Amino acid sequence: MITEFRDAVRANLGFAERLFAEISAATRDEPGVTRAAYGPGEQVAHDLIAEAARGLGLSSETDAAGNLYATLAGRDRSRPELITGSHLDSIPHGGDFDGTAGVLAGLIALAALDEAGVEPAFDLSLMAIRGEENAWFQAGHIGSRAALGTLPADLLEGAVRVDTGRRLAEHMAEAGLDPQHLGAALPHLPPETVRGFVEVHIEQGPVLVEAGKPLGVVTGIRGNRRWRAGHVVGAYDHSGAVPKAFRRDAVMAFVELAGDLDAAWEGIEAEGGDLVVTIGEVATDAEKHAITKIPGDLRFALEVRSHSAETLDGVAGLVQRRAAEIGGRRRVTFDLGPMRADEPALMDSRLRRRLSEGCRDLGIEAMDIACGAGHDAQDFVMAGIPAAMIFVRNANGSHNPDEAMEIADFALASELLAWFLANEAV
Amino acid sequence: MITEFRDAVRANLGFAERLFAEISAATRDEPGVTRAAYGPGEQVAHDLIAEAARGLGLSSETDAAGNLYATLAGRDRSRPELITGSHLDSIPHGGDFDGTAGVLAGLIALAALDEAGVEPAFDLSLMAIRGEENAWFQAGHIGSRAALGTLPADLLEGAVRVDTGRRLAEHMAEAGLDPQHLGAALPHLPPETVRGFVEVHIEQGPVLVEAGKPLGVVTGIRGNRRWRAGHVVGAYDHSGAVPKAFRRDAVMAFVELAGDLDAAWEGIEAEGGDLVVTIGEVATDAEKHAITKIPGDLRFALEVRSHSAETLDGVAGLVQRRAAEIGGRRRVTFDLGPMRADEPALMDSRLRRRLSEGCRDLGIEAMDIACGAGHDAQDFVMAGIPAAMIFVRNANGSHNPDEAMEIADFALASELLAWFLANEAV
Repeated sequence: MITEFRDAVRANLGFAERLFAEISAATRDEPGVTRAAYGPGEQVAHDLIAEAARGLGLSSETDAAGNLYATLAGRDRSRPELITGSHLDSIPHGGDFDGTAGVLAGLIALAALDEAGVEPAFDLSLMAIRGEENAWFQAGHIGSRAALGTLPADLLEGAVRVDTGRRLAEHMAEAGLDPQHLGAALPHLPPETVRGFVEVHIEQGPVLVEAGKPLGVVTGIRGNRRWRAGHVVGAYDHSGAVPKAFRRDAVMAFVELAGDLDAAWEGIEAEGGDLVVTIGEVATDAEKHAITKIPGDLRFALEVRSHSAETLDGVAGLVQRRAAEIGGRRRVTFDLGPMRADEPALMDSRLRRRLSEGCRDLGIEAMDIACGAGHDAQDFVMAGIPAAMIFVRNANGSHNPDEAMEIADFALASELLAWFLANEAV
Repeated sequence: MITEFRDAVRANLGFAERLFAEISAATRDEPGVTRAAYGPGEQVAHDLIAEAARGLGLSSETDAAGNLYATLAGRDRSRPELITGSHLDSIPHGGDFDGTAGVLAGLIALAALDEAGVEPAFDLSLMAIRGEENAWFQAGHIGSRAALGTLPADLLEGAVRVDTGRRLAEHMAEAGLDPQHLGAALPHLPPETVRGFVEVHIEQGPVLVEAGKPLGVVTGIRGNRRWRAGHVVGAYDHSGAVPKAFRRDAVMAFVELAGDLDAAWEGIEAEGGDLVVTIGEVATDAEKHAITKIPGDLRFALEVRSHSAETLDGVAGLVQRRAAEIGGRRRVTFDLGPMRADEPALMDSRLRRRLSEGCRDLGIEAMDIACGAGHDAQDFVMAGIPAAMIFVRNANGSHNPDEAMEIADFALASELLAWFLANEAV
């Protein structure tokens, strides 16, 4: 059986490559591609996938949030289904593979199983998801959360697309959907109707490239703690005229806090913990600063990510304590502003073992890998549904036009996905 | 004799207070006052001082750069003169005392000596100086350098006033001066005609306030090393997807360099060295940065000041070495850009001793004090003329509308200045 659907997956590779190229060409916006959530680029991609699914003989439907489902019917259609999929929107000027790779892997995996005569015990569905990227509405995972019934109702009227200034509900209506219905309806995917979710996605970092492995089996999706509006307030003064002991220097106070976090990070990694610390934004006040002035204030954005909620809480506590101590000693005030928390989402251990078993069975060299970024899979975890993720090796990072996934690696991911779906649905 | 001119100084205090108030009222620009270099506010102040000098019976003249001299003639007018003075321009929305205090102290000191019947051995002149503040033409000390013949000729056409966009030569012409003549003429103050320069100025920092001393005798004016256009170049990447070892994080690299400088500063101070380190400007790129991105670049402005050229060179070397080492280890590039150097200017040791002697003689509690900012006095030092400075206690720093000098402290400075002039010109 393995050989049969493996050959069938390989036979569908050219088809997938043409679809990658078609979607890329139809949504080109140099440099890269743009497929805004609930915008025309995303719609074109959904239309192309729907057409392809029909051509492959899969049944398809769309839910109230515009997510597309292509289904290989199971022997018992009343049993909970197993879903694979990813999203089709991109950030502005994004790359060809973020999201799309997972949708196409699911499409050719289902097609291969069908062609190889596999009759699954329950429905196997590909889900092409809407609006995953945060970039458009400053809120992401819209399609998956809407399908699972976990999208906050106020987002429909409250979230505004950054490029148009118009509300999510308007953009949904424009895409031919009925957001009123969405608000009122039961979710399309009540948790008891879904036995699991598996997502193929390109790796967004360099770990697989550096390790020389084509695939990764994701252990979990990191949670985070974010302070978007950190503010250090000291006092402006003449840089030459005020000795160290009298200064209220916002930059040097920030530097001490940031250095402490860098050191704590190194310590936590040395002990085998999982953490990344990013100060993505920092600025003194361009209206007031000068090379000859002690800087009187500084703003910064701080994010920490970890698989461990305990580590996240530990670092958040450290930030608070060090800011208070440094502020007192250096005569500045740290106003950290509101902190936002997203909890870590662990992948299901049974599904992870299953994927590793598949790799051994197919002779694929894979490694366990931590996932640092958010993905639709985490919304399934939050809804209580077991989830797993397969990372595909990809050079140059993601969210840029230079994403570079080899089609040979994509083929291995699609084969592993097909193996997983077939063996789960025996 | 001491009592005579001391009483005469005190008798002139009310006159000085009225002049402070008149200049302040005539150049008010809420908040604070504005007297642009070679602008109408500066001119009004010069006119008021010239009128006051005439009223006091002092001879007055103006040089080609617009500096005003009010002179108490000496017994031998062919001998080199002793000059006191300071500047009358202010930064935009500055305070009432920066510069002005030194001019008024000189004015009432000369008036007091005259009234007390002191006949100096050589000319004693008050110089009211033009264009000291850097803020207007991004080049300061214009009047003093023009008088001493050390103003670079290209500044006349090359320096542009930041508020008007017009050239220094145009503004001079508008103030009734002849910049062509200035360029061609011999300097008004050839070094051999000046035996010394003494400047009274408010302290721009909190040292005298904190120490509880009304006056300071300046030991020297700090030199500096400045990097206006520091740039750290790393690589933008997904904050969650790239582990510590693969990051090229411009912010964390900057933080390490800045932390090293802060530590070196502490070490140099602990060993009794003189140093201040200021990173007045720092910013990630607002077009590219995000809370969820590893910061790929950062710009900063760094300044170090010290009385010791050796310390300045030592720290400049440290900046270079640490930037190279940190850059290599953290996989970022530090482009420090051009470094500008201003050398320290030591006050003349004989004149300093003389001022300290004056304090003892008059029962004034003074302390030696380092000067961190630039002043006209340093241009006299650079021209080979012995110089000294008297700092007056002042709260709330300078270059702001809240400068707060007590008139009682100003009285002590004026008395010390009169003592110094009289005793030098015996």
